[in-house]
Amino acid sequence: MNPIEIKQQLKRFLNSSEILEDSTALLVDQRKRYTGYADIIVQPESVEHVRQLMAFCFANRISVTPQGGNTGLCGGAVPNGGVLLNLSKLNRIREINVADNAITVDSGVVLQNVQEAASKAGRFFPLSLASEGSCQIGGNIACNAGGLNVLRYGAMRDLVLGLEVVLPNGELISHLNPLHKNTTGYDLRHLFIGSEGTLGVITGATLKLFAQPTIKETAWVGVQSIEQAVTLLSLVQGAFSGRLSSFELISQFALTLSADFSQSREPIEAPWHVLMELTDSVAREDLGTLLAEFLMDNGFENAVLAHSESERSELWRLRENISAAQRNLGVSIKHDIAVPIARVAEFVENCGKALQTAFKDIQIVVFGHLGDGSLHYNTFLLDISDNRVYEYENAVNEVVYANVFQCEGTIAAEHGIGQIKKHWLPKVRSETELNLMRAIKKQLDPYNIMNPGKLLPEPDKWL
Amino acid sequence: MNPIEIKQQLKRFLNSSEILEDSTALLVDQRKRYTGYADIIVQPESVEHVRQLMAFCFANRISVTPQGGNTGLCGGAVPNGGVLLNLSKLNRIREINVADNAITVDSGVVLQNVQEAASKAGRFFPLSLASEGSCQIGGNIACNAGGLNVLRYGAMRDLVLGLEVVLPNGELISHLNPLHKNTTGYDLRHLFIGSEGTLGVITGATLKLFAQPTIKETAWVGVQSIEQAVTLLSLVQGAFSGRLSSFELISQFALTLSADFSQSREPIEAPWHVLMELTDSVAREDLGTLLAEFLMDNGFENAVLAHSESERSELWRLRENISAAQRNLGVSIKHDIAVPIARVAEFVENCGKALQTAFKDIQIVVFGHLGDGSLHYNTFLLDISDNRVYEYENAVNEVVYANVFQCEGTIAAEHGIGQIKKHWLPKVRSETELNLMRAIKKQLDPYNIMNPGKLLPEPDKWL
Repeated sequence: MNPIEIKQQLKRFLNSSEILEDSTALLVDQRKRYTGYADIIVQPESVEHVRQLMAFCFANRISVTPQGGNTGLCGGAVPNGGVLLNLSKLNRIREINVADNAITVDSGVVLQNVQEAASKAGRFFPLSLASEGSCQIGGNIACNAGGLNVLRYGAMRDLVLGLEVVLPNGELISHLNPLHKNTTGYDLRHLFIGSEGTLGVITGATLKLFAQPTIKETAWVGVQSIEQAVTLLSLVQGAFSGRLSSFELISQFALTLSADFSQSREPIEAPWHVLMELTDSVAREDLGTLLAEFLMDNGFENAVLAHSESERSELWRLRENISAAQRNLGVSIKHDIAVPIARVAEFVENCGKALQTAFKDIQIVVFGHLGDGSLHYNTFLLDISDNRVYEYENAVNEVVYANVFQCEGTIAAEHGIGQIKKHWLPKVRSETELNLMRAIKKQLDPYNIMNPGKLLPEPDKWL
Repeated sequence: MNPIEIKQQLKRFLNSSEILEDSTALLVDQRKRYTGYADIIVQPESVEHVRQLMAFCFANRISVTPQGGNTGLCGGAVPNGGVLLNLSKLNRIREINVADNAITVDSGVVLQNVQEAASKAGRFFPLSLASEGSCQIGGNIACNAGGLNVLRYGAMRDLVLGLEVVLPNGELISHLNPLHKNTTGYDLRHLFIGSEGTLGVITGATLKLFAQPTIKETAWVGVQSIEQAVTLLSLVQGAFSGRLSSFELISQFALTLSADFSQSREPIEAPWHVLMELTDSVAREDLGTLLAEFLMDNGFENAVLAHSESERSELWRLRENISAAQRNLGVSIKHDIAVPIARVAEFVENCGKALQTAFKDIQIVVFGHLGDGSLHYNTFLLDISDNRVYEYENAVNEVVYANVFQCEGTIAAEHGIGQIKKHWLPKVRSETELNLMRAIKKQLDPYNIMNPGKLLPEPDKWL
């Protein structure tokens, strides 16, 4: 299909504002090393239009180069013909969820705008790099961007909770939820992160947020050798651990260049330099003070602060003994679930009511890791003898999981799928995703000899 | 092949100590819910024997169920015939690397032994869960285990730096390095994490270590509702950020059960309970004190501590202006590399010498994120005119990357592969891995329309 025909066809479903007439700047990378060419340059204004575009290109075998802020250093976003798909117009901040420390954005949002939106909500998005004023989240994800704060917060890969991706054939994979724990089958998210636009088009992402650092301690240290810098790093990490957010090494020559350029003085003379920063967010230093204020504000005076290691162990023993203790109630039907933290209360209330309506004499033991939204939600059918409990498992699961799905949660936070839950997998992963998992499985294990019958449902249908 | 034949064949390459005669306990899961069966149970004593076993089973279409500590809650390690491959005898701690905060272990090492080995080295391995005294690292990875410290340190997925995996056909994929940044193609590591033994056999892993928490503040708080607990969580996260390591929700009923079982008193009466812990590792509170001691110990008095936001900006400006400043030197051949932190000094020295030997008038600008081992290593050929510099790129790359490989580093820490480095990919990823990437790519994008010609080398050979 020639460029004119492609354009005519695209006009059937794209607005004229989505087709760029003259944007040759987008065909050159920022270092001006590669100059590409394209039959057409498009800037879709909706995910639906990206889907339609990909379905069209797939059907017509037209190649597509996704592009964000075009700030890449390796020429990965320069097209070699076909469609240049610039994502700049997918630029909405979709949602900020403070309880779950999560933000959901279109992939075309500029990194700095994500930082600012987080900041307005009293939170912090830590990815920070030289091109943050123009690079886009989708490109950051496609390249697994790093930058200045990887030490404390991880690279982009570590900051992505969920992804929305249009596959080459136009199908959509979407897991834009703020769950911090979710282990249901092969983690396809990490296939797309770092795949540089070769597996699909990232159109949206849910990203992790953190507390805003309010205190910054910054030091410049001259050292005689890199070995000495490494010793200092070990020392600072040992002393300040997770608070160390940057530890930059700079050669004397790099400093001289930069100081000349900046018309600054060099802070120190030394063969090697370290710029380090510790960040913290301690608004009030003392946990006791914070708790006293919280309890006063909430009119409920109930807190114990451990004052010794033995008091501490005693508190933890109560948490750790729950599992053993509940065995006295008989055989349990366990649920290893997670829902967004903001919806835990709603889930516990609604699911409890639903179970009590459906099963008489059901006892529910609820505990878990509220900090990451995951609950051990264990149910006991007190009127059923132990050896018959599992006959009711599917019926109990159906009630519990319906409530989990209602709250956009997961049925497998940290125990896996195994045999127990594999027939539930099609409820939480789409047919597209299951097919992809099967293809990966088939490529690696063509005769299905690895742990057959676990995790993936219906192996007979795909071998 | 019947069980007797299988056994005879296995004896050709397995020691008799690796073939278990009577271990029916391993056929039942810990909750005694599933009872499996196996033709034979083996406990290989080396990775090589795992490879031989898988190659044999692959050739003979015999299924294999990998098993670690057999503590799973979903029946994922119970065999349905074939070989039960118990990893307990792969139980060596292979290496501890304090500078890179990394530990490399066999997959059969019990979690608690990893915690203890880290502790002996003055570091902390944070994964902590009920079965830590018997569960194994391989199972933790296969199931992406969670537990008590996910909030601060992440789940197992977040703690794995590198993996060694035997594929179903007996091939080995191994990336047991401590690099915190490495983006060279599709991240296959994350395919295996959480895949529950269905894609291959995990035989080793390099895991992240952290500073040992020396201060623990533990509090038990009674709240009237889950909503109130969520409010408290937000408050504590806002105030103490990354120091919050646990935030556990416990229902009154769960507490009563546990207190009765523990013969303890309930610390507080309330409808819902929160057990929270803040951990810190501040041996010496003040960065200034630490720096003064470091400088005194190292006989080199050179450090500036920022005392105001403007002093801080001034220091950071020097770091940030390096890239712009170096353009005055002309066109650069950039390298976005990372090596283990412990080897940065060695790399800089050897690579500098090698470049100076190979190219006269070469100028090297070194700076980067020492905290995560990644360097921007930029080279300038001062005697070559700007428009001819790239003719020398491969020759410069060859010297630089040879030194990177010598130090077990990566050629792409945070900028990606794109067009610039794709011909280098076969140097850093094995043919097995490239084939897997191609298969995944082919499954998702059968007509190679997504960003063709980027990232993966030689697309013409596989379509």
